[in-house]
Amino acid sequence: MKNTAILLIDCPDRKGIVAAVADFLYGHNANILHADQHQDAERGLFLMRVEWDLGDFGLGTADFGHAFQSIAETFHMRWRLELSAERPKVAVYVSHYDHCLADLLYRHESAELVCDIPCIISNHPDAARLAEFHRIPFHHIPVTTDKAEAERRQLSLLRDNGVGLIVLARYMQILSPDFVTQFPYRIINVHHSFLPAFSGGRPYHRAFERGVKLIGATSHYVTETLDDGPIIEQDVVRISHRDQLDDLIQKGRDLEKVVLSRAVRWHIEHRILVYANKTVVFD
Amino acid sequence: MKNTAILLIDCPDRKGIVAAVADFLYGHNANILHADQHQDAERGLFLMRVEWDLGDFGLGTADFGHAFQSIAETFHMRWRLELSAERPKVAVYVSHYDHCLADLLYRHESAELVCDIPCIISNHPDAARLAEFHRIPFHHIPVTTDKAEAERRQLSLLRDNGVGLIVLARYMQILSPDFVTQFPYRIINVHHSFLPAFSGGRPYHRAFERGVKLIGATSHYVTETLDDGPIIEQDVVRISHRDQLDDLIQKGRDLEKVVLSRAVRWHIEHRILVYANKTVVFD
Amino acid sequence: MKNTAILLIDCPDRKGIVAAVADFLYGHNANILHADQHQDAERGLFLMRVEWDLGDFGLGTADFGHAFQSIAETFHMRWRLELSAERPKVAVYVSHYDHCLADLLYRHESAELVCDIPCIISNHPDAARLAEFHRIPFHHIPVTTDKAEAERRQLSLLRDNGVGLIVLARYMQILSPDFVTQFPYRIINVHHSFLPAFSGGRPYHRAFERGVKLIGATSHYVTETLDDGPIIEQDVVRISHRDQLDDLIQKGRDLEKVVLSRAVRWHIEHRILVYANKTVVFD
Amino acid sequence: MKNTAILLIDCPDRKGIVAAVADFLYGHNANILHADQHQDAERGLFLMRVEWDLGDFGLGTADFGHAFQSIAETFHMRWRLELSAERPKVAVYVSHYDHCLADLLYRHESAELVCDIPCIISNHPDAARLAEFHRIPFHHIPVTTDKAEAERRQLSLLRDNGVGLIVLARYMQILSPDFVTQFPYRIINVHHSFLPAFSGGRPYHRAFERGVKLIGATSHYVTETLDDGPIIEQDVVRISHRDQLDDLIQKGRDLEKVVLSRAVRWHIEHRILVYANKTVVFD
Repeated sequence: MKNTAILLIDCPDRKGIVAAVADFLYGHNANILHADQHQDAERGLFLMRVEWDLGDFGLGTADFGHAFQSIAETFHMRWRLELSAERPKVAVYVSHYDHCLADLLYRHESAELVCDIPCIISNHPDAARLAEFHRIPFHHIPVTTDKAEAERRQLSLLRDNGVGLIVLARYMQILSPDFVTQFPYRIINVHHSFLPAFSGGRPYHRAFERGVKLIGATSHYVTETLDDGPIIEQDVVRISHRDQLDDLIQKGRDLEKVVLSRAVRWHIEHRILVYANKTVVFD
Repeated sequence: MKNTAILLIDCPDRKGIVAAVADFLYGHNANILHADQHQDAERGLFLMRVEWDLGDFGLGTADFGHAFQSIAETFHMRWRLELSAERPKVAVYVSHYDHCLADLLYRHESAELVCDIPCIISNHPDAARLAEFHRIPFHHIPVTTDKAEAERRQLSLLRDNGVGLIVLARYMQILSPDFVTQFPYRIINVHHSFLPAFSGGRPYHRAFERGVKLIGATSHYVTETLDDGPIIEQDVVRISHRDQLDDLIQKGRDLEKVVLSRAVRWHIEHRILVYANKTVVFD
Repeated sequence: MKNTAILLIDCPDRKGIVAAVADFLYGHNANILHADQHQDAERGLFLMRVEWDLGDFGLGTADFGHAFQSIAETFHMRWRLELSAERPKVAVYVSHYDHCLADLLYRHESAELVCDIPCIISNHPDAARLAEFHRIPFHHIPVTTDKAEAERRQLSLLRDNGVGLIVLARYMQILSPDFVTQFPYRIINVHHSFLPAFSGGRPYHRAFERGVKLIGATSHYVTETLDDGPIIEQDVVRISHRDQLDDLIQKGRDLEKVVLSRAVRWHIEHRILVYANKTVVFD
Repeated sequence: MKNTAILLIDCPDRKGIVAAVADFLYGHNANILHADQHQDAERGLFLMRVEWDLGDFGLGTADFGHAFQSIAETFHMRWRLELSAERPKVAVYVSHYDHCLADLLYRHESAELVCDIPCIISNHPDAARLAEFHRIPFHHIPVTTDKAEAERRQLSLLRDNGVGLIVLARYMQILSPDFVTQFPYRIINVHHSFLPAFSGGRPYHRAFERGVKLIGATSHYVTETLDDGPIIEQDVVRISHRDQLDDLIQKGRDLEKVVLSRAVRWHIEHRILVYANKTVVFD
């Protein structure tokens, strides 16, 4: 079991940031395992992810904030500390199509995704048996005319389970802006096209109609604007005139699984920073 | 030197088409080298490309149309016969960026593109030395306020040289609808995005702004609607947050070259059929 | 439910083959859905796959052989007729790693793989629960010192279930030549490298050691020579110095699943012809 | 024009390295533009590349070594300092096939490759005209029975021109071990296969014979063992049974160009560190 801390920082770029952070960590005897940084010259922005072993570390996590405060203030940092020992709690939403759900559950079980999944939520009952096989509680919350009521029930479940990340695994309902704002950059969706191409409904149909030679899938954070949140991962696969609509849908499924599971993994490993509606992925 | 004939057919799908065509060719002693066909079940359409050696073929090309007429009528075919011995005449248009031009000229010289290039046309003088190195006549036709006059000069050149295909190798001017309609599915453009994403101007800037994780390039036939013609080929390359705008532009150049040169090769080898604003590429 | 016939042919190339086959099918009122052919000029070989709807077809499948005989003899054809209504019977072999098995079973259940899976065979008991979830009989046949005995038990199972295809889904035992010869081009294996690189044991370890920049996976028919059978499908994924051995293994799993499942699908859809230790895949 | 310094470090991993280096640079007022590091946990190795603007830097490059000495000794570092203002001097070797040469010269002229190319060396006269077009001195040095004599002439040329990197752009001669040892990790070759598959001669022929479904190309540093040096970059492209040997060769050319030019760019931008016969590429 890993026992590491991960520090994520963004601040205006200026001289001395790395020296200050490195000195601080070295001063507390941190054994750094990974460090990655990025500078956006155009925007004058500095971003950093550093991960260290907590074995020899001389500072309790409760004291970290106090000790780090003066550096954070000097450089006007936004920062957060994450602990690998605290497994993120992830809720998975699904509708009829369960290939992404099945894929995520398999990766969870084989420890590729190190997180807890306290609940699966669906507007259809179909996935109950799959959830049961993986021993995850399944909640059927139909979305009828009263969408607000359904979201209230969902929120109550999410709160009760301490959920920190919602994964929309081909969930075919649009969440209300109210709901979305309660989980800023903590809802990941997979869209079955190469965004920004074919945003909105029926992307495979429209890709087929347009005669593209590659189809894609995109995982992204959900914001209030449909299919417009920060993109986390994308991939494509080649198609030809021999591929009919059904072939696109089938080939697309493999893309969706890979693109969504990578995004979830990077999120729960605290590898993603968001700015300017874009993601930096420290892989 | 290849001495083959290529027959391209499209017609409503029904029983007996392949038998009729195969019997006809066999009856005239054709040695078939390649045959490929495609059926679009939804639209009830049949498309075919067949290539045979003219060595033993018992029918002069002048007589082909007459002999084939009854089959063509029976099945309501649109068809055309192409001869590999008749090298297509290709005009290349270019502006400032000459990487696609340089790439096409190299492939032409090394016999990867079997065609004649009787002229290079540019609204800038920059590419003159490159054209000269490859011994291709270069024509500098500035496009000023009087675009119609420039197109008249171009048309005269194209006509004089018997040009059958125009390749826009990053030509930064928009051709008039009048001009375009004179070359139906005989103008190939490369657009530096994964269409339909980022159609129109400054696609790399917009891709960078949007934070996509892959960038693309698309070669397509030019129609009267900008960036909306039948797509011939597309490809993508992975980028990350480490890539700045200049990196996108540089990585994109390699895509543009490959995607455009494939389209040109397939066109001059008579491998492309167009229907419903899509392409069938018999590779 | 599809109700089609698929005719697979290979023979020495000469004039008139397509005409003869097309005439024959047209004469019996076949409604051809797909036809694809390939000529290997160097070896003078002709290969063909043609699929037609049995709805209007005027010939019973029992009579096909007799009716087709004279054409087959004239052209010295090897041929076979397959019916989409006869679902292939597939046995899946597995050891400890069950990601390929889980993937195949999901694709089977979602009708992406149209076949019957009458049995799963493993030298370990681990996959029993997964098999049960998918309602497939699971047989634990340990492979101890007496490998011949284990193979006898397997053969008896395979025979009882009328198995026509064996899929080695990361089965970590080597089958005896005796066993292999009983299933010519009817055993599909996935090897976790880009063959012929890293054939044999521990390919990820050796890829990591060698410092390659891409890792691959290969599905192929099993022959008597290890990892040397006809390759059906291959794919690769990019790695970097940031990827440790565990990352290679994890990224490789996604390749293995895709590469194996494609091979199985193409086989059960009768799209593969083998010659000269290579495959022709009519996709 | 960039005016930066690049510091490349490798040393045993231990606490405090980053802090020491960052403090040192900050103390001399360095404006860090990029920093990247890598730790090989298994081997206990730390590697780093840091690039800073020399504008405000308070230390002359002549004094750098003296000032940095105590840190270097404390951590047992191997290190070197490179200056972007000192353009690397690159010699390109070529034989008959000139596609990689033409590609490199184009990228050089368009400033994608920021280096000087003082000489092109070939055992054939073919590329003279291309070299002249790009205004690069061309030297025809035939390699006859007396290979040692040819290498002596080459070495004299390389020395006179202060060459720091040799690029074998499909140079079809094997360099002697004596020659190779004089340019440790300063000779880059492109091999037209996905190494370690098909090392040695005629890789496309052997790939075609084996029936692989992807072909590849590899750029690597040349060591005394043929095709065994540290791999810098690899890429692949899909082929099918429709591709004949000539198609493999043609598709492969595009791979070779991309794979070789990337390696050259990374080398001259001082992005590559070598250890354990592998490369770390800080891109």
